[in-house]
Amino acid sequence: MLISFEGIDGCGKTTQIMLLRERLEKEHFPVEVLREPGGTSISEMIRGLLLNPEIEMDSVTELLLFSAARSELISSKVKPLLKRNIIVILDRYYDSTVAYQGFGRGCLPIAQIHSINAIASHGLIPNLTFYLDIDLKQAADRRKNQVNDRMEASGAAFYQRVIDGFRFLATKEKRFKQIEAWHSPEEVHRNIWDVTKKNLGKKRTV
Amino acid sequence: MLISFEGIDGCGKTTQIMLLRERLEKEHFPVEVLREPGGTSISEMIRGLLLNPEIEMDSVTELLLFSAARSELISSKVKPLLKRNIIVILDRYYDSTVAYQGFGRGCLPIAQIHSINAIASHGLIPNLTFYLDIDLKQAADRRKNQVNDRMEASGAAFYQRVIDGFRFLATKEKRFKQIEAWHSPEEVHRNIWDVTKKNLGKKRTV
Repeated sequence: MLISFEGIDGCGKTTQIMLLRERLEKEHFPVEVLREPGGTSISEMIRGLLLNPEIEMDSVTELLLFSAARSELISSKVKPLLKRNIIVILDRYYDSTVAYQGFGRGCLPIAQIHSINAIASHGLIPNLTFYLDIDLKQAADRRKNQVNDRMEASGAAFYQRVIDGFRFLATKEKRFKQIEAWHSPEEVHRNIWDVTKKNLGKKRTV
Repeated sequence: MLISFEGIDGCGKTTQIMLLRERLEKEHFPVEVLREPGGTSISEMIRGLLLNPEIEMDSVTELLLFSAARSELISSKVKPLLKRNIIVILDRYYDSTVAYQGFGRGCLPIAQIHSINAIASHGLIPNLTFYLDIDLKQAADRRKNQVNDRMEASGAAFYQRVIDGFRFLATKEKRFKQIEAWHSPEEVHRNIWDVTKKNLGKKRTV
């Protein structure tokens, strides 16, 4: 089972992933958390390029680098883990590419981004995607003490388009669960666990 | 005007590019040579990953990294040079991706590789592509004193498929000029210059 988490920085992804992992482990499910971009030595090198605020790059280059990091993570880590029946939680997956590079940067038509995503993901679709929905202002409040990385320095209008992109995906894809993320971490976790539990149940009856 | 050179290692690309550049400069054409993958600081970092024999990677990852390096080279270097009416000679371009990753590694259907190429090249098609055709045995003879890099260590069967890929492209694309590269460098250069001259002429009359 593959579960991805999506949302802009400050939405609480890291906390929620940690809470879901702990809960799954308590229920004796083997679980592994991997982050995008990263998780393999090549992908971590690419991550270094992508998040370095000193490096300017074309938005199509950015898209292709994210895709290369993803391809390596999926083929060398995620697929082997799933084969061993380990639940994989991904901190970002290809929906981020649609939202950030497609809606946010507008660098390519969404259809072209979907076709690159299909290649870079080696055809692997998540069983569940939790999108932690939060307003721009709430996200800014949570992040105000942090130094901006290259992605975060892109401004408010950019982030609003990214949010619009995620919300659009939530209306399109059945696996995409939009979670109101401005509640307390405990309440958000309860919602996430309810949905996860139901889907775990489904798998077991097969 | 954009001219690309293609062919397996040992085909004499470097020599022929140098001879064409000198000839164009003698005729007072401004000319710049760029190599793939490379030519920008990001692309050179990516080149370092791709040619390092210590690094193992999935063939789809390899394709996406070549594409990212290409995207940056085209958008930040090649397009601005062409706008200033400088002739750009590329040491490899997207036809290498079709031949090496498509035919050689067989990592994706050729149609999918064409669609990634269209994105990574920002739609920029060469006016002329010189494919320096050489047999596997002749290439091996020329390279026998060199240490193999990661790409070169892939074996004879792989290289035969790459050659087949280039020869296939030569039958498909009008811009693709297959040059018999086992002749003397002077003779090969004469053939290349004849074709280039004709196409320079065409441009001038427009």
